[in-house]
Amino acid sequence: MEKPLVGILMGSDSDLPIMEKAAEVLKEMGISYEMEISSAHRLPEKTAHYAKTARERGIEVLIAGAGMAAHLAGVIAAHTTLPVIGVPLKSGALEGVDALYSTVQMPPGIPVATVGIDGAKNAAYLACEILSIKYPEMAKKLKDFRSKTKRTLQQKSKVLKKRKT
Amino acid sequence: MEKPLVGILMGSDSDLPIMEKAAEVLKEMGISYEMEISSAHRLPEKTAHYAKTARERGIEVLIAGAGMAAHLAGVIAAHTTLPVIGVPLKSGALEGVDALYSTVQMPPGIPVATVGIDGAKNAAYLACEILSIKYPEMAKKLKDFRSKTKRTLQQKSKVLKKRKT
Amino acid sequence: MEKPLVGILMGSDSDLPIMEKAAEVLKEMGISYEMEISSAHRLPEKTAHYAKTARERGIEVLIAGAGMAAHLAGVIAAHTTLPVIGVPLKSGALEGVDALYSTVQMPPGIPVATVGIDGAKNAAYLACEILSIKYPEMAKKLKDFRSKTKRTLQQKSKVLKKRKT
Amino acid sequence: MEKPLVGILMGSDSDLPIMEKAAEVLKEMGISYEMEISSAHRLPEKTAHYAKTARERGIEVLIAGAGMAAHLAGVIAAHTTLPVIGVPLKSGALEGVDALYSTVQMPPGIPVATVGIDGAKNAAYLACEILSIKYPEMAKKLKDFRSKTKRTLQQKSKVLKKRKT
Amino acid sequence: MEKPLVGILMGSDSDLPIMEKAAEVLKEMGISYEMEISSAHRLPEKTAHYAKTARERGIEVLIAGAGMAAHLAGVIAAHTTLPVIGVPLKSGALEGVDALYSTVQMPPGIPVATVGIDGAKNAAYLACEILSIKYPEMAKKLKDFRSKTKRTLQQKSKVLKKRKT
Amino acid sequence: MEKPLVGILMGSDSDLPIMEKAAEVLKEMGISYEMEISSAHRLPEKTAHYAKTARERGIEVLIAGAGMAAHLAGVIAAHTTLPVIGVPLKSGALEGVDALYSTVQMPPGIPVATVGIDGAKNAAYLACEILSIKYPEMAKKLKDFRSKTKRTLQQKSKVLKKRKT
Amino acid sequence: MEKPLVGILMGSDSDLPIMEKAAEVLKEMGISYEMEISSAHRLPEKTAHYAKTARERGIEVLIAGAGMAAHLAGVIAAHTTLPVIGVPLKSGALEGVDALYSTVQMPPGIPVATVGIDGAKNAAYLACEILSIKYPEMAKKLKDFRSKTKRTLQQKSKVLKKRKT
Amino acid sequence: MEKPLVGILMGSDSDLPIMEKAAEVLKEMGISYEMEISSAHRLPEKTAHYAKTARERGIEVLIAGAGMAAHLAGVIAAHTTLPVIGVPLKSGALEGVDALYSTVQMPPGIPVATVGIDGAKNAAYLACEILSIKYPEMAKKLKDFRSKTKRTLQQKSKVLKKRKT
Repeated sequence: MEKPLVGILMGSDSDLPIMEKAAEVLKEMGISYEMEISSAHRLPEKTAHYAKTARERGIEVLIAGAGMAAHLAGVIAAHTTLPVIGVPLKSGALEGVDALYSTVQMPPGIPVATVGIDGAKNAAYLACEILSIKYPEMAKKLKDFRSKTKRTLQQKSKVLKKRKT
Repeated sequence: MEKPLVGILMGSDSDLPIMEKAAEVLKEMGISYEMEISSAHRLPEKTAHYAKTARERGIEVLIAGAGMAAHLAGVIAAHTTLPVIGVPLKSGALEGVDALYSTVQMPPGIPVATVGIDGAKNAAYLACEILSIKYPEMAKKLKDFRSKTKRTLQQKSKVLKKRKT
Repeated sequence: MEKPLVGILMGSDSDLPIMEKAAEVLKEMGISYEMEISSAHRLPEKTAHYAKTARERGIEVLIAGAGMAAHLAGVIAAHTTLPVIGVPLKSGALEGVDALYSTVQMPPGIPVATVGIDGAKNAAYLACEILSIKYPEMAKKLKDFRSKTKRTLQQKSKVLKKRKT
Repeated sequence: MEKPLVGILMGSDSDLPIMEKAAEVLKEMGISYEMEISSAHRLPEKTAHYAKTARERGIEVLIAGAGMAAHLAGVIAAHTTLPVIGVPLKSGALEGVDALYSTVQMPPGIPVATVGIDGAKNAAYLACEILSIKYPEMAKKLKDFRSKTKRTLQQKSKVLKKRKT
Repeated sequence: MEKPLVGILMGSDSDLPIMEKAAEVLKEMGISYEMEISSAHRLPEKTAHYAKTARERGIEVLIAGAGMAAHLAGVIAAHTTLPVIGVPLKSGALEGVDALYSTVQMPPGIPVATVGIDGAKNAAYLACEILSIKYPEMAKKLKDFRSKTKRTLQQKSKVLKKRKT
Repeated sequence: MEKPLVGILMGSDSDLPIMEKAAEVLKEMGISYEMEISSAHRLPEKTAHYAKTARERGIEVLIAGAGMAAHLAGVIAAHTTLPVIGVPLKSGALEGVDALYSTVQMPPGIPVATVGIDGAKNAAYLACEILSIKYPEMAKKLKDFRSKTKRTLQQKSKVLKKRKT
Repeated sequence: MEKPLVGILMGSDSDLPIMEKAAEVLKEMGISYEMEISSAHRLPEKTAHYAKTARERGIEVLIAGAGMAAHLAGVIAAHTTLPVIGVPLKSGALEGVDALYSTVQMPPGIPVATVGIDGAKNAAYLACEILSIKYPEMAKKLKDFRSKTKRTLQQKSKVLKKRKT
Repeated sequence: MEKPLVGILMGSDSDLPIMEKAAEVLKEMGISYEMEISSAHRLPEKTAHYAKTARERGIEVLIAGAGMAAHLAGVIAAHTTLPVIGVPLKSGALEGVDALYSTVQMPPGIPVATVGIDGAKNAAYLACEILSIKYPEMAKKLKDFRSKTKRTLQQKSKVLKKRKT
């Protein structure tokens, strides 16, 4: 079995329905990954250890999804110099604005590459783009994916134009 | 020299002008304290170690101030079961709303006792109130402080009423 | 019957479904408590009286939950020097942002230890942490609770990893 | 000296620069008033007593200005059935949004007539409008004031039009 | 049939489910009222005419409810010096924050007495409080209403305490 | 003197420093305009009359700037079927968010073409674009303006690139 | 078949339920239009080409609806000097506030005429108002539409008044 | 001269004071870069061309800073599959919240790696982290940078502790 290039972490198993969309995109793009629950607050030692050892274990990009105070991506970023992609999750009364601010407003020197609220898919596409600077075949796959998206949308636009007539 | 009962932490020395107001209140109330810089992101190991050993070193309340993503109080709370008071600091474009949400919206089981934005004074008064359940003389001091506040405000009100005549 | 250490107040019986989660946590942690309805606006004298007499009746921590303008925790804090934990409740069109601001932005000298919106569970855990500085067995119970949480989460992470294979 | 019809309260003497604009308008409109400092949190008994006795002392409208958690108008409203006008004040990091929400989002049965942030002038005009239902000469004065405002604005518009030519 | 003292206006018949709560309170309190649809944007002449003639027709308080841009209360206030109570209604994507800001942030000289979002009940209670400065029996009715509210809430608190035992 | 094609209105002369930027753009683009102060609240009849007669007087586009509750553009739109461009102005504690919501969230049937906060320049460019569907020379002028903007920006980019070397 | 005067674009076929309301209004008002899917991000070349050629193909007004980052209207405006009406759509966790800001806050020189969130109907009415400066019969149609709206609303108001009796 | 690995773009030369901080960090880390002004709205063709040709010219990471509607990063991302880092800039009345939402809330398939408001430094550090998966010496440099940061902060903490004694 292939060694994972991407690690997907989430603060709680209730985050899985959103975060597994990242896994699905990676699978489609042929990227090996691993997925774990690791809370900044409830499993702080595991989280630190995971982040610290990620590079030496061959991980090249980390994706972390969390809701509310959403410290996970930032805490991971504190323990590694690998690129960390943060996915703010919609949950609780503030519906993800809290998680967005907690994820994106990092202090100088410890960046988190933040995607939109519940943007797990985009976290995976961003991981692919990052990997594409090292693996030329990924650049090719991304180009094909974009072309396919275009064709689908153009097809839908044609259907819409016909319907109107 | 007396062993500190309260630990005051801040993410950066630029937070000092606000956070030292907590120290001033504690001094006035006769509470011993220590003050350190300890960033959740730039000094994660120190922060974890400080929090883990706080109770055994005799610390009874922790105060943590941070701005922007403001993970400090939450990360400290993850490593101790002492009460942790979070002070969201006003800084950057979001002016403390980010820090407020990051500090207060903690997941179940790991609370942070959050005070208002830049509310370092209130963090110290809250620390005194917490200590007052154990140290009866602190309850007395707080009562005196409240009485003094009342007298000052009533005096100001009298001045205002006279001015108007 | 044991004298209560914690008083839980709420502004309306419609707040009970959230606020009784605080009671459940206290029960699990073996803390005696009492629970009352007491509105800052509709029962102001009772609220003031309750707060003023709480310490002498043996109460050590107060928890107050309210929605919208949410003055309850602040009004209680005005009448006691015991630590007051405020739970902003989600209700009405602003969904708890109003209650959060009303609860946390207290003036200097009268702090409210604010937890997240609908964070009744965390209010109870925070009460336990506060009590732990006086009652060593509570420190032990909190440590056990944290360990149990870790084991549960690690178990869930293992299930997730297996599922993926 | 004339018995006051309007009571103006503020939570702190730092609120005076804004709140005295209400006094100025009342003076212009020939309404007798009194002005006091009375904090919901730092002078709770005085505040309750003031509100409870206001009607019997001949007060007909109350104006209360406060910033941040801004419980003052609501607490006054809890102790009287006179109309209470709340002025949310801009102060602190949230710049008055907190005070606006705390003042306007009152529970059913205890309304606060809220004006804009720092809207002390409008609080006074609203007091005049309320008094105008009882005192016909006030209706006349308000009509004159509106006419004067119109003439001033029309004059300014003419100046602007000429400038452009 | 009695001449109405209060006029209730709303921008659309879709606002009726909220706005008729104001009518219900007025009925309970024995205040005669009339209720009309009158849009600031779709019926501007009617709205202006209604406001201009309200005082001479014996109306003493106006209540206006509107959602989104919510200009209704402000436009009515522009055409009368009677007290105008604005009820910002929750509707559309911004869920009433737009209506709150549009209603409360009036320019100097043209106040709107704003209540909470969807606060139609409180608009009616505020109308009663305003009328109470002129009609002593209304002061009595409001006092009775407050006492009844207190008894109901105290009864509920007793039930809650028993349940817990 | 040429009959104005565009009417620029503002709620107060304090809005002039922003709103005259619209006039400057129109002058540059060779569009005749008139500029007046006309408040939705303080000059409601003038505002209505101005809007109602605008089309017959040859006006083809209206620009209205206002801050805070900012009802001006909406009230004008209620009285004309000409296109009305709204400029929300930054003023007061909410810094233009209130004006933006009040201007843009209009009910169905009465649109306001809203530009950014303090976007008086863009209001004028939008007026030119609207006029360009009728006056072909305006389309030409706009194209030239865009080309000029491009050249200026490309020049600045070149300077920046050189500086770096 | 008639050449379209208005082009309606949307970023995704999921936007159709809202955006087709614009089409319905245009149909009612007798304006020919075309409707296409054209994403700023997924079909950037098509979007640019569509905008660049719109004027020469006889299009006079463009309507663009998009949610979340909502760059569509702005990108279209970058490629044409025709008036572009932007419809921010409610979708995702931020429920349209993101789309509103992304659509309305355009830089000087490239305006977007923004309507309310999900305001597709108003986008169409605004298009009609713009066309009315060139096509006098459209001014007539808009006047008739306004009159009809008034009659309907007045009828509803009468029903409401009767119900109350 | 070395071929640039990172392209830094900004929408206007007024963005330079913030964006050149990214350049300074890259220089310190020994990364070659180029810096250009390229507006999504005022130079759309240049922007598209720059993005489309970036990969073939050897660029591996793109950094784009823009304020207000802030479409730049998204438009660049639409034309390349290289990782694009977006820097929302504080400007105008909304002070960067608009730019943050416009940058981060991208549709699926076209991610932008967003950093905090005015977070140009972190954009550069994130670029370094991305490059570190391909260039091992960059991983080393980042590690050294983190260590240096730790030492500086620990030194500051010691100074603070001494001061207090």
